[in-house]
Amino acid sequence: MQPDQIREHLRKFTQLPHLAGTEQNLRYAEQIKKEWMEFGLDSVEMVPYDVLLSYPNKSEPNYISIIDQLGNEVFNTSLAEPVPEGYENVSNIVPPYSAFSAKGQPEGDLVYVNYGRTEDFFQLQREMNINVTGKIVIVRYGKIFRGNKVKNAMLAGAKGIIMFSDPADYWAADVQPYPDGWNLPGGGAQRGNVLNLNGAGDPLTPGYPAKDYTYRFSLEDGVGLPKIPVHPIGFHDAVNLLKNMGGQIPPNNWKGALNVSYRIGPGFTDDFKSQKVRMNIHTDNQVTRIYNVIGRIRGALEPDRYVILGGHRDAWVFGGIDPMSGAAVVHETVRSAGKLLSKGWRPRRTIIFASWDAEEFGLVGSTEWAEDNTKLLQERAVAYINADSAIEGMYTLRVDCTPSLHTLVYDLTKQIASPEDGEEGVSLYESWHKRDNWTNDRDAPRISKLGSGSDFEAYFIRLGIAAGRARYTKNKKTERYSSYPVYHSVYETFEIVEKFYDPSFKRLQAVAQVRGGLIFLLADSQLLPLDVNQYADSLRKYAQSITQLAQKHPEEMKMYEVSFDSLFSAVENFTVAARDLHECLQTLDRADPLQVRIMNDQLMYLERAFIDPLGLPGRPFYRHVIFAPSSHNKYAGESFPGIYDALFDIQNSADPEKAWEEVKRQISIAAFTVHAAAMTLTPPA
Amino acid sequence: MQPDQIREHLRKFTQLPHLAGTEQNLRYAEQIKKEWMEFGLDSVEMVPYDVLLSYPNKSEPNYISIIDQLGNEVFNTSLAEPVPEGYENVSNIVPPYSAFSAKGQPEGDLVYVNYGRTEDFFQLQREMNINVTGKIVIVRYGKIFRGNKVKNAMLAGAKGIIMFSDPADYWAADVQPYPDGWNLPGGGAQRGNVLNLNGAGDPLTPGYPAKDYTYRFSLEDGVGLPKIPVHPIGFHDAVNLLKNMGGQIPPNNWKGALNVSYRIGPGFTDDFKSQKVRMNIHTDNQVTRIYNVIGRIRGALEPDRYVILGGHRDAWVFGGIDPMSGAAVVHETVRSAGKLLSKGWRPRRTIIFASWDAEEFGLVGSTEWAEDNTKLLQERAVAYINADSAIEGMYTLRVDCTPSLHTLVYDLTKQIASPEDGEEGVSLYESWHKRDNWTNDRDAPRISKLGSGSDFEAYFIRLGIAAGRARYTKNKKTERYSSYPVYHSVYETFEIVEKFYDPSFKRLQAVAQVRGGLIFLLADSQLLPLDVNQYADSLRKYAQSITQLAQKHPEEMKMYEVSFDSLFSAVENFTVAARDLHECLQTLDRADPLQVRIMNDQLMYLERAFIDPLGLPGRPFYRHVIFAPSSHNKYAGESFPGIYDALFDIQNSADPEKAWEEVKRQISIAAFTVHAAAMTLTPPA
Repeated sequence: MQPDQIREHLRKFTQLPHLAGTEQNLRYAEQIKKEWMEFGLDSVEMVPYDVLLSYPNKSEPNYISIIDQLGNEVFNTSLAEPVPEGYENVSNIVPPYSAFSAKGQPEGDLVYVNYGRTEDFFQLQREMNINVTGKIVIVRYGKIFRGNKVKNAMLAGAKGIIMFSDPADYWAADVQPYPDGWNLPGGGAQRGNVLNLNGAGDPLTPGYPAKDYTYRFSLEDGVGLPKIPVHPIGFHDAVNLLKNMGGQIPPNNWKGALNVSYRIGPGFTDDFKSQKVRMNIHTDNQVTRIYNVIGRIRGALEPDRYVILGGHRDAWVFGGIDPMSGAAVVHETVRSAGKLLSKGWRPRRTIIFASWDAEEFGLVGSTEWAEDNTKLLQERAVAYINADSAIEGMYTLRVDCTPSLHTLVYDLTKQIASPEDGEEGVSLYESWHKRDNWTNDRDAPRISKLGSGSDFEAYFIRLGIAAGRARYTKNKKTERYSSYPVYHSVYETFEIVEKFYDPSFKRLQAVAQVRGGLIFLLADSQLLPLDVNQYADSLRKYAQSITQLAQKHPEEMKMYEVSFDSLFSAVENFTVAARDLHECLQTLDRADPLQVRIMNDQLMYLERAFIDPLGLPGRPFYRHVIFAPSSHNKYAGESFPGIYDALFDIQNSADPEKAWEEVKRQISIAAFTVHAAAMTLTPPA
Repeated sequence: MQPDQIREHLRKFTQLPHLAGTEQNLRYAEQIKKEWMEFGLDSVEMVPYDVLLSYPNKSEPNYISIIDQLGNEVFNTSLAEPVPEGYENVSNIVPPYSAFSAKGQPEGDLVYVNYGRTEDFFQLQREMNINVTGKIVIVRYGKIFRGNKVKNAMLAGAKGIIMFSDPADYWAADVQPYPDGWNLPGGGAQRGNVLNLNGAGDPLTPGYPAKDYTYRFSLEDGVGLPKIPVHPIGFHDAVNLLKNMGGQIPPNNWKGALNVSYRIGPGFTDDFKSQKVRMNIHTDNQVTRIYNVIGRIRGALEPDRYVILGGHRDAWVFGGIDPMSGAAVVHETVRSAGKLLSKGWRPRRTIIFASWDAEEFGLVGSTEWAEDNTKLLQERAVAYINADSAIEGMYTLRVDCTPSLHTLVYDLTKQIASPEDGEEGVSLYESWHKRDNWTNDRDAPRISKLGSGSDFEAYFIRLGIAAGRARYTKNKKTERYSSYPVYHSVYETFEIVEKFYDPSFKRLQAVAQVRGGLIFLLADSQLLPLDVNQYADSLRKYAQSITQLAQKHPEEMKMYEVSFDSLFSAVENFTVAARDLHECLQTLDRADPLQVRIMNDQLMYLERAFIDPLGLPGRPFYRHVIFAPSSHNKYAGESFPGIYDALFDIQNSADPEKAWEEVKRQISIAAFTVHAAAMTLTPPA
């Protein structure tokens, strides 16, 4: 895989905006299809779905005003981001907006609620005694998924919500704003959807693929659509909304880096008391055709075993980082797989490459395809490797994956060269290990849990397919901003990657080697490289950590007789079964194809065993008992999410006995699931 | 398999009452375990669960009174059935009761509601204008599952429900009551549970096995427990309750065969106006230990493929027919499999034999084991053959099974001899075909759809495992009574089988050959004997028949734009895929073990493809989109039950547009499911 090739792929697919559902995104799909065929895949098809998307109204722009008592607009937020140099003549740049916002023009006083997290609203309501009913809340971006902020605002009774990018969260020290550096200019803002889908995919067809014959719910009954207007702004505009706010001075951890006092409100200070804020939101929901591109290499021996490399193609604007740095990597992986094919190689198992559409609108393309192919995937999918943005920093590798893939990731990265200057002869593993050790826990590079927010969600959390993702990242310890500064802005261009993030394209090459190497090894190893012992170790750690969380309430634990014994006993059971299976694998007669298949089936189906068909409480499409986002932040993966959420709810419950009963129920479900998974590891009869 | 052996098995296991949860039923379990080991199975284990059962209170008997205006009891129903000759000294015969009845002593006027079906209550309320709120309803047994009657009574507002066995429904012409014949004596009554579980198993642990660590709901939150008292009576007692009833004379099809006028009520005629009815119900719910016995023969080549023969052991009293005629057949099957093993035979796949407990309390033992082993079963189970009562009549074979098993059943029954006198040299197939041809449809013996009401439910309807059942039955055309007259009474003895149903035990032998033959062929054939073309044919018939049902509403079909085109298109798609797969199978290289396994996986997983993880509306554990009972009668299997129920609800809906939207949604789900199933039949990559 060649850095120069990746550069050219990235350049080619970032020239024009290609929002999901637009002509240009279809053009890129066709081009990808054509090139994948030329690279030599066995088949490539375009797979369309008709899903609910959301666009600003072209004749009525979205903006936020400060109005005087006569209703005159005395300040309006900007209608677009300043277009970067070289792109002045580009059309179809969608202005910053919150996709799936409700329409409306609510007026009211502002209340500032920090990041809009559950705990921020608790603090506002309980400690500061501020009720946001009928108010417009303003929150800063960061820490949690924006959809969760919107949900929290709705639950608190707000009639609108404004989200802004604070330099405290989107500005790296000693870095210039784009185009002179990679920081977010004050006129830049973060687009993004504000749904609460919890894995449903297309809001109108939850559970089923959005095909021509598919029944569609009405917009009212659609899943996860916010009922209030939402709008994102940059920090130049934010200053104007915040600077005259009145009310309490907040605690320091509520203060960002703008030159304002971050008062809570409600409303403005005395001098501006008569001014209100009005949101003007005209965004339209629209059922729109989207296209996934699906390419295949047929497996030589086990065509009915699937290894999937999928990432999205749709971008808010150019997608220089998100997602095309990832799509370029997939493109290069396909090119190099084609080369291997032309030399006579064919993998043992089938490889599927996917260019997903409409990820930005709620992981829609990947979820619809998962729904469409649900039976096949459940029975046949070995692993899913995700290929969203391949780079978000310049520091080292970042991997989130299921525990059974840890060992493979380590083994593989030892074979890959570090892309960092001055590290010739150093492996990616060593380079990564040095920069991000698994502190306090083990002497190995850190690997994190999968959360959500990208296309692996349906495959991992709904279907229970072993999954992982890898990208190049920043130094978490010193770079405190969320994601990367220009995230979802017009400034995500080809040039930002070429000039700043990866001028040699060696970092992207390393990511390509990780993603491609995983696919290669998963598809071509006779025995599946999935480590069941590692899963056992991880389960034990997770059980310990959720127990610690519960033990913050020692009296209630005693009073309600809450015990984690059953969970630990299940983990012990699992550990023994994993060890036994691992031993069996050592003595397996690899010349016996049926024996090999039987063992591989056990390995493949392990992840599936963690799926509870009943789903997590209130979230029928989040079905993984070991890993899912908490209900309070879609981005962060929690272990034992059912127990985690039940414990979270204790602080918020009017009926503690009932809340603790739910904790006990969730412990019981977790224990059962781990026992059931252990059973799948024991000899089959 | 030997008739004399079956006779002795049956005799041995019907000497004492063995209600689920009692000492005696544990004794029989231990004996079965011991004998299965002696027969030569590789392993036999007892698998306990702690589940909610329900027993009459020993110190306060259940009965129903007619009371005068002072509250004095002027008539009481009997406390027990007259014990049959030879069993006078037997203890622990549980009196007739409705398991899981609510406790209580409601008083009120009686209303007679025929069979207590949804349509009976409609007719009562809409045509006869009778409101049963606060009344006690009395209904006759038959036509539908008793739990549905209870649910209907609750929904209608009744405060109690009495069910009686009417001779019109439980009396064969020209037959004496037991012990001189096989009719139900006037003092006999039908026990039975009155739950509405819809596949949940133990009411307190829906979705999870009832183990020591399992969270249990409170009784209030338990699944399917009736909230009103319920009690069953025989026709001698029924006459006393019915004879003085006043009110309207009902239509003829509401009249049974008793010498009373079957007036509707409410309450008694003028002379008895001051009398009321009081139910006295003290039945207790109790978490109780039950025991399944699970025996295994390890598969030689594919130990991870399971073929299951399961039937229950627990009986209301002696279980002469239900279930021990079936259990004796299983016992004989195990004995003969043991003989084969001792001669060096070992099946390709693993065979599992199960003696389920607590079937009579809601299919509890089999459902808990399915929940306990859900991951293994989902991944590995090839087929489930049910072994409840092996005989319910003296006429011919009755088979209910999934379409993919039709061909196997036909092929197999051609190899089995007819058990009927005078049919030497005639096959079971011919004998059956002659007596019960698939009228108007095809020239073959009739095979019916699976409904529910026995232990295959969790395996087929929840998990999507190919399933079937076979027994000897009556002549449906001439014998109109429901099930068989002594069903669930104390008169189900060994003698009733030996004297009347099968004196030579050749009918039970034939059933053993069918059940055992199915297991043998499913476990030992290199290629699974599952016929995908037959599934395609059946789907087409079902689509036609549900379309016809909808076309009873031609105007609404037009007005709401309801079309079945998508379903027919999916069926067409499935038909082509099935034909192609069938052709592939003909040219398969059977010397290639991996190829054979891949094809068998496709065959095995076909039934699984019809499972919708979201379940049918309001019934999360009924997940089979092609087959399930309707919501109005658990006994009868409907095809496309989602559409069927949606169409049924139209007559009952206050909002026809919404009701038709639901029909459309269900058609869309059916079409999707058939398409998805078709995909599993196409070549894997």
